[in-house]
Amino acid sequence: MAKKTKQKRPAARLPKGMRDIGPAEIRAMNAMIATIRDVYESYGFEPLETPAFEYTDALGKFLPDTDRPNEGVFSFQDEDDQWLSLRYDQTAPLARYVAQNFDMLPKPFRRYAVGPVWRNEKPGPGRFRQFMQFDADTVATTSVAADAEMCMLAADTMEALGIARGQYQVRVNSRKVLDGVLEGIGIDPSFSTGTEQQVRTRLTVLRAIDKLDRLGMEGVSALLGPGRKDESGDYTKGAGLDPQQIDKLMTFISAGLAANSAQQTLNSIQALVENSETGRQGIEELMEMQTLLESTGYTNKRVLMDPTIVRGLDYYTGPVFEAELTFEVKDDKGQPVRFGSVGGGGRYDDLVTRFTGRPAPATGFSIGVSRLQSALQALGRQNTNVGLGTVVVLVMDFNERPRYLTMVNALRSAGIRAEMYLGTSGMKAQMKYADKRGAPCVIIQGEDELANGQVQIKDLIEGAKAAQSIKDNKEWKSTRPAQFAVESEKLVEAVTSVLARHSPQVKN
Amino acid sequence: MAKKTKQKRPAARLPKGMRDIGPAEIRAMNAMIATIRDVYESYGFEPLETPAFEYTDALGKFLPDTDRPNEGVFSFQDEDDQWLSLRYDQTAPLARYVAQNFDMLPKPFRRYAVGPVWRNEKPGPGRFRQFMQFDADTVATTSVAADAEMCMLAADTMEALGIARGQYQVRVNSRKVLDGVLEGIGIDPSFSTGTEQQVRTRLTVLRAIDKLDRLGMEGVSALLGPGRKDESGDYTKGAGLDPQQIDKLMTFISAGLAANSAQQTLNSIQALVENSETGRQGIEELMEMQTLLESTGYTNKRVLMDPTIVRGLDYYTGPVFEAELTFEVKDDKGQPVRFGSVGGGGRYDDLVTRFTGRPAPATGFSIGVSRLQSALQALGRQNTNVGLGTVVVLVMDFNERPRYLTMVNALRSAGIRAEMYLGTSGMKAQMKYADKRGAPCVIIQGEDELANGQVQIKDLIEGAKAAQSIKDNKEWKSTRPAQFAVESEKLVEAVTSVLARHSPQVKN
Repeated sequence: MAKKTKQKRPAARLPKGMRDIGPAEIRAMNAMIATIRDVYESYGFEPLETPAFEYTDALGKFLPDTDRPNEGVFSFQDEDDQWLSLRYDQTAPLARYVAQNFDMLPKPFRRYAVGPVWRNEKPGPGRFRQFMQFDADTVATTSVAADAEMCMLAADTMEALGIARGQYQVRVNSRKVLDGVLEGIGIDPSFSTGTEQQVRTRLTVLRAIDKLDRLGMEGVSALLGPGRKDESGDYTKGAGLDPQQIDKLMTFISAGLAANSAQQTLNSIQALVENSETGRQGIEELMEMQTLLESTGYTNKRVLMDPTIVRGLDYYTGPVFEAELTFEVKDDKGQPVRFGSVGGGGRYDDLVTRFTGRPAPATGFSIGVSRLQSALQALGRQNTNVGLGTVVVLVMDFNERPRYLTMVNALRSAGIRAEMYLGTSGMKAQMKYADKRGAPCVIIQGEDELANGQVQIKDLIEGAKAAQSIKDNKEWKSTRPAQFAVESEKLVEAVTSVLARHSPQVKN
Repeated sequence: MAKKTKQKRPAARLPKGMRDIGPAEIRAMNAMIATIRDVYESYGFEPLETPAFEYTDALGKFLPDTDRPNEGVFSFQDEDDQWLSLRYDQTAPLARYVAQNFDMLPKPFRRYAVGPVWRNEKPGPGRFRQFMQFDADTVATTSVAADAEMCMLAADTMEALGIARGQYQVRVNSRKVLDGVLEGIGIDPSFSTGTEQQVRTRLTVLRAIDKLDRLGMEGVSALLGPGRKDESGDYTKGAGLDPQQIDKLMTFISAGLAANSAQQTLNSIQALVENSETGRQGIEELMEMQTLLESTGYTNKRVLMDPTIVRGLDYYTGPVFEAELTFEVKDDKGQPVRFGSVGGGGRYDDLVTRFTGRPAPATGFSIGVSRLQSALQALGRQNTNVGLGTVVVLVMDFNERPRYLTMVNALRSAGIRAEMYLGTSGMKAQMKYADKRGAPCVIIQGEDELANGQVQIKDLIEGAKAAQSIKDNKEWKSTRPAQFAVESEKLVEAVTSVLARHSPQVKN
């Protein structure tokens, strides 16, 4: 061994921004995913799984992290020098799939997808470089009925997960309306007709509005003008708009605040975009969505119009939506904060067209599964019913393992989680192991029990309870609470009744 | 649009060796995973999820593809220039996890993991660069009872998936026995005491034996000697052993053929390794495993000893196992072939020690989920009961979408998969859409039906059956088979009874 230490050992560490996920969270996540899947399937979406990575040019670059390495994605080269990237969302791979299989697909094409995505972002608390997304998309339709349906889907999913009406909101806006307001202040936002400077200004304006939650009205206003110095002293250059332009934009993003209904919000925005063809079209679409949502009962309590919604991804072209949790949780310093966004989406009419040149307008909604799981945990709504641990058969004589393993087999055959202690340590270590594993009981058969044709069952849950009430060590030893002997052939029966006693009640 | 075509469009294509997975396969895979999970959990394993990539040095290089780019893995650099690799299995990340969290874990540590792994291999038919593995491992025990348990787990999993006893075999061998045979022919196989040349020869020998399935005895014999030219004319250099050495190795790998029982196989191998301490230890371990397996009924029909089993990965140190399907399927040319390996594993005592220097002997078993799924398909045992498609509410008047969407809502609330047609095309395209989606029925409400307070339900499954028996086009039109009107308020009730009529029977 000594000789080997010269060789440098690798350090056992997680890559930056990554995490391991343990049993309780995995079980809760699986339960969540099953619930979301049920809702998405009830809407008629069918599952599709694309690979974890795609050719980089097929994914495109639509993340807002233009200043990050590889613009926010993880990329590598194949043996033939082509660049590949881990998917940063489920939408870009879907666009590739649709473009590749367009003719054979039913139109509209409706699919859901669940799986991890990867972003080369700066990690932070609760912000990881791998996270799970659950998406639904409808491709090849211009109808905003498909967008309205995404909002209904978002609302239904929240409620299916136990988030009550009033604890969440799906907020809706439109990139077309945003562009209409920009036109209204003299900025042509179109990629094809605007100047390079104007297109850049548009992005700066959108990103400024997107930060409203974090920076407040004043911060956004500064970012629309000359720029803003943050707490760390870093200066972010602004959009360079003049006070009149800023004023009009601030009026726009405040339009939802005073309104009592989605209709009222839309009416006050309408005035701001009436001179823009794009803006008028955007308002018309939102109004059509609103009619559909109201007629099906998805009113203000569940879905509402909110001009401050922007969404980070560059590929959106029409309505955009965000699902937010409106209840408060305590932050690290004990301050109440809103939980915020757990999902979003919108219309992206050009993502498939990028490949084919043919129109394939589309819309989708994506849930951040890991983030939503934290929310459910905060709400106490997470399914923490992980069941009982495994029954451990202790090994009193290592030469007698075949006998113990036969007991385990009998328990397993009866549907009971069971294992023989597989280490090589003594009784004390075995009991410690069973405790650490959360075993409901252990099975003991030493020489004496064997001679009597019996096994001892030690109920660890009952034992822990009893230990709290028994002060006297002598009493403890003499009573041996929660341990009893049964005939060997009654092992399964006896364990079954111990488990039944402790089975967690289903939590609603 | 014309202007834009100058811009080069990306091609919509899958990366080499990758594939998209559709609804039927996803549903079957989920059902399979649920079954495997149940078995693994009944054994007391707990789930763990590690990230998709790790630091390259933490994963180590243990794949047999030494001549592939990056030795068979996909690697890239982080912003701080550290190398990262997509996991090529679930075992190497587990070793990192255990090394990192050793003190807090119960010992032995027992976890299962399911998820994709990636290999930079040459793709071929049925051979992809991303595939799903389902692993169980027991870490921190020297006891081969843990290895015996892995074989039991493998057998139980096969049977739980509907692969009958006799259609599969779990074959067991030991790297220590293999090394013992090598010692017996004058090759010191140890990394610490053997010469570089001897260690290389050992690898060449192991890989030659590993190819027995594909190349037969003659091919292996050639690879143990000077080398072998394959059908394409490529020459593979051999291990360069002399005829006597080759003869002894061939005797060893044939030891299982003539034997009638595992015990007999072990007895005949024993004679070949009696001069090697490592070999004797290997035999002793296999015999102990055999005792445990026999005492619990995992005999020759399910688990057997087979000296030809090697396993590709370099990190194994003791018993190795392979789960094979023994029934025949037809290959591309219609020739019957054995299905072969669907999983395997073994003991790897040094993988955690690599990090910590402390001993943490371990053993595990891994199922190739995708491969096993193909097998179940071939057996007709795959759960193909994917349920009925979605009910489609047709849109007869696009201004009346709120009304149609309200119907959809009512159906969904009753637990029925339903959607409103979300495209913008006419009646003919809508019917074609419903057909393509596999809709069990469509709902139609035009002006007339609305005036009468009715909806039409068109049963597409019944319709398709009727269409086969009706020859006369005129008769078809006059009878309108499988289409009927109901009162609007009886929509849910009527659709429920149509669905009940067509619900697929559960297949056993």
